[in-house]
Amino acid sequence: MTSSESTSAASPSTGLLFGLAQIDTCVGDLKGNAAKVLEQSGVAAERGAQVVVFPEMTLTGYPIEDLAFRATFRRAAWQTANDLAEQLRQEGLAELFVVVGTVGTDREHDRPRNRLVVLHDGVVWAGYDKHFLPNYGVFDEFRIFTPGERSVVLEIHGVRVGLAICEDIWQDGGPVAELAKRHIDVLLTINGSPYEEGKGHVRQELAVRRAVEVNAPVVYLNQVGGQDDLVFDGGSFVVDPDGQLLERSPSFREDLSFWQLTFGDEDDGGHRLDSSVSTVSPALDPDEEVYRACVLGLKDYMAKNHFTGVCLGLSGGIDSALVAAMAADACGGEHIWGISMPSMYSSLGSKDDAADLAKNLGARYEIQPVEPLFKAYQQQLHLEGVAAENLQARIRGVIVMAYSNAKGLLALATGNKSELACGYSTIYGDAVGGYAPIKDLLKVRVWDLARWRNRRAEELGEQPPIPVNSITKPPSAELRPGQQDSDSLPEYELLDQVLAAYIEHAHGRADLLKDGFDPETVDTVMRLVDRAEWKRRQYPMGPKVTALAFGRDRRLPVTNAFRE
Amino acid sequence: MTSSESTSAASPSTGLLFGLAQIDTCVGDLKGNAAKVLEQSGVAAERGAQVVVFPEMTLTGYPIEDLAFRATFRRAAWQTANDLAEQLRQEGLAELFVVVGTVGTDREHDRPRNRLVVLHDGVVWAGYDKHFLPNYGVFDEFRIFTPGERSVVLEIHGVRVGLAICEDIWQDGGPVAELAKRHIDVLLTINGSPYEEGKGHVRQELAVRRAVEVNAPVVYLNQVGGQDDLVFDGGSFVVDPDGQLLERSPSFREDLSFWQLTFGDEDDGGHRLDSSVSTVSPALDPDEEVYRACVLGLKDYMAKNHFTGVCLGLSGGIDSALVAAMAADACGGEHIWGISMPSMYSSLGSKDDAADLAKNLGARYEIQPVEPLFKAYQQQLHLEGVAAENLQARIRGVIVMAYSNAKGLLALATGNKSELACGYSTIYGDAVGGYAPIKDLLKVRVWDLARWRNRRAEELGEQPPIPVNSITKPPSAELRPGQQDSDSLPEYELLDQVLAAYIEHAHGRADLLKDGFDPETVDTVMRLVDRAEWKRRQYPMGPKVTALAFGRDRRLPVTNAFRE
Repeated sequence: MTSSESTSAASPSTGLLFGLAQIDTCVGDLKGNAAKVLEQSGVAAERGAQVVVFPEMTLTGYPIEDLAFRATFRRAAWQTANDLAEQLRQEGLAELFVVVGTVGTDREHDRPRNRLVVLHDGVVWAGYDKHFLPNYGVFDEFRIFTPGERSVVLEIHGVRVGLAICEDIWQDGGPVAELAKRHIDVLLTINGSPYEEGKGHVRQELAVRRAVEVNAPVVYLNQVGGQDDLVFDGGSFVVDPDGQLLERSPSFREDLSFWQLTFGDEDDGGHRLDSSVSTVSPALDPDEEVYRACVLGLKDYMAKNHFTGVCLGLSGGIDSALVAAMAADACGGEHIWGISMPSMYSSLGSKDDAADLAKNLGARYEIQPVEPLFKAYQQQLHLEGVAAENLQARIRGVIVMAYSNAKGLLALATGNKSELACGYSTIYGDAVGGYAPIKDLLKVRVWDLARWRNRRAEELGEQPPIPVNSITKPPSAELRPGQQDSDSLPEYELLDQVLAAYIEHAHGRADLLKDGFDPETVDTVMRLVDRAEWKRRQYPMGPKVTALAFGRDRRLPVTNAFRE
Repeated sequence: MTSSESTSAASPSTGLLFGLAQIDTCVGDLKGNAAKVLEQSGVAAERGAQVVVFPEMTLTGYPIEDLAFRATFRRAAWQTANDLAEQLRQEGLAELFVVVGTVGTDREHDRPRNRLVVLHDGVVWAGYDKHFLPNYGVFDEFRIFTPGERSVVLEIHGVRVGLAICEDIWQDGGPVAELAKRHIDVLLTINGSPYEEGKGHVRQELAVRRAVEVNAPVVYLNQVGGQDDLVFDGGSFVVDPDGQLLERSPSFREDLSFWQLTFGDEDDGGHRLDSSVSTVSPALDPDEEVYRACVLGLKDYMAKNHFTGVCLGLSGGIDSALVAAMAADACGGEHIWGISMPSMYSSLGSKDDAADLAKNLGARYEIQPVEPLFKAYQQQLHLEGVAAENLQARIRGVIVMAYSNAKGLLALATGNKSELACGYSTIYGDAVGGYAPIKDLLKVRVWDLARWRNRRAEELGEQPPIPVNSITKPPSAELRPGQQDSDSLPEYELLDQVLAAYIEHAHGRADLLKDGFDPETVDTVMRLVDRAEWKRRQYPMGPKVTALAFGRDRRLPVTNAFRE
């Protein structure tokens, strides 16, 4: 693919201005996504950009999963790309090179492909197809796509631009290795790279390695936004082969930044180019990063599924407090229905903490006692022990869902990863909901983020949202008198370490003992985690923020006799 | 891999007797699976077999999913294979060639492999690694395994046995194409091929094609049993290149059959062999096939997860009646707790039908009225419309789960595929449960199977279990006065056709119109199906019996704006 264009508003002799359009797309919303491309292209052109780059699968949203198999979807995506190219022309943007991702079709096998196309001069230029198809962790691309076979260099105003899509730069060999032999001036990669803690550094180091390999700067454009259980953090950037960070876009929000590729002083008259340093957004504090990932996941789930408000049970505990604070940051406190559902075992302090929280957030607050309902059931059922504890939790689940149904609210599940791992929740009880904002946070991290959120409020001169007592008191489900989590579970400081080793590192029994954990704790934790698999299958979705989240990231059989 | 053995109880000059050990393994139960291999090997040897063949991944169970990544599991599997080889030797079975599947490790990449090994003479012979890794539909093998690179011919008493594992014979090229050039006398394939309706014929036709390709009979050994949402039907068989069916094992139960490969009359002194016809089990009626698949799925889920009884709501309708009949066939009527939960809108007829059903099945039958609980909630919540309807369903969900918790019973969800598709169920209400036996049956099929089950009872001179009225009355959720399913949904005869086209064939709007469905129906059905995706994510597992079930077979985003 070689551009025949040689005229442009900006002089080619001074280099090339790239617009980095880090947008938030929506899966399946072809028209909406195309409209964003059109708008951002206009802004970029006004600022003098000759090239504007959008994320992986811009037009379709990402990941599209098995929607790729629907022929009407692929046809509509193709039509959208063509219509958009024509619209760009009509808007006077024919000279702009607009790089977008979409779904293509492998004509030989009639199978979908993950494709990059360039819109220019009113037409869709033949594109580049992703070569390496990730099929690990949360990714199933080998399932839905066939791999592209060839590397592509785009020539724009004399600048040789090599193309890649996401995984292509994570694997050795393939298109990048080919591009390394083709004397490119810049490597452009479009990405849908889901957030996980600390991944920004990994991406940057990797990009520098590829910059060295192709001996040219790397432009890394990532999407931003939430899509079901994934959050894309944006944080697009440009690095050069010396490891210098030339540009970094902000994280967790849409952005249009610019980066100029200029001819260097030592230009030998050929293609040796130099590049300028643009705006570099600061990296975020690790707690802030994770907090904002959860908020964005929730915010986009709401927006893209047309929810304007949420409801949740407020127990006075730390989990529901953190979720409520996140929800307030996602949709505003006034759109939160906080429901206090005290039982005979709820402490006075807990009720006060719940009320204080709602007040701090400006949330609606309603009290629905569980006891009368509990008594009505018990007249028929006469339950004891765990069954009676679960009954209280399920009455609460019914109430939360009643608010959801009656008012069209998104019900939020407030379970954390430690609970979810150990099955320390009641299915159809506290586990009800359409979204679970903190399901990938271990309990210790929940406390960390709560403290961070309060600290941030103090820094801004605002009222810290989370009552201190919710953070400091010993955790309890309050389903029987004097109950504490530590009656049934190891202390969270220890538990979370075992869970990280067992879940994220797939360490079995022997490996966990080698890690230094005592046999009793290991056996307890493994038994709890394994037994709860069936409950996790029915748990609501929530944002992945760690290297290994429950859900499609960890696919274990429910029926499984292995205990080591 | 070549056997150095030349002596054996049976004379090699008369050929080779294969034992086809179609066993029901359990994922992760290394010891239990090995014990079955030992036992069946003993029986096979007594009957004079020189080779005994077990299913794909015999020792580990199948599919193991991400359990493959746990190093302690792979080490334990390796130890199990070695211990088993030694036990076989100690039991006097050293001369037997025992073909089993297990998980191996690709040493170069330290990645799991899907491996066939031969236990003989007290040791584990170097094995064959599956080459083609299915990564479509319900399969994720490219995610967890690396592919084997070479074909293997095992020489046993002068007979050249080519080896394959499941998907290897479904794809052209690869190991079978290589084996075609290596003059084998028989092709042996071990399988974990999940049931779907009519798949038996497809497998047999495919095997004949491979028999022609390698110019030798094909021994196809399939596993039997339920594993989470998959049912393996067994139905192992042997075909020759003329398309003749030489042996077929029964479906849906464990079996040890035998097949003799003998020298033919036209033996040219080399390797030309002939084969005898063994027992050929008859094919099943299509309704019986599906019914038994559902029963086996439930039965094995219970057995492998240590449930001895079930509980479910009996509404008097066809869905709960069919599920209860299946449960009675899976675990015996006396282990069923049928709970009638009439509301103010339940008809007298429905209550009678539920009671009759329980009586026919010999099930326990308890009545838990919903009305007092409904009133208690309404004093606090004052719900109307759909929220009030859902409340009734959720009270029932709480009651069913109370029985489950208090008595250690497996709660069964009774929803069918048509309801699940359209979201015509209440999440945390009638959708509660650990297993959903008919979730992959469209409503029309539910009636078919109910009629088949009653007919079968009549043929056996037994009381037909399902009350005729449950089959013939118009379907209704009975959540408001006079409600019928057809108020909200197209008639099931039409609905099920649209669903099959939209779901199983991924036909989009334009394609559905081309199929001849009217636009109003198409738009209604697509809207209902798309909106219910989030509920399906939280629905219990149940057995896949169609070409495309909900769950891991169909991975669609919840957040998805595409409506065509």
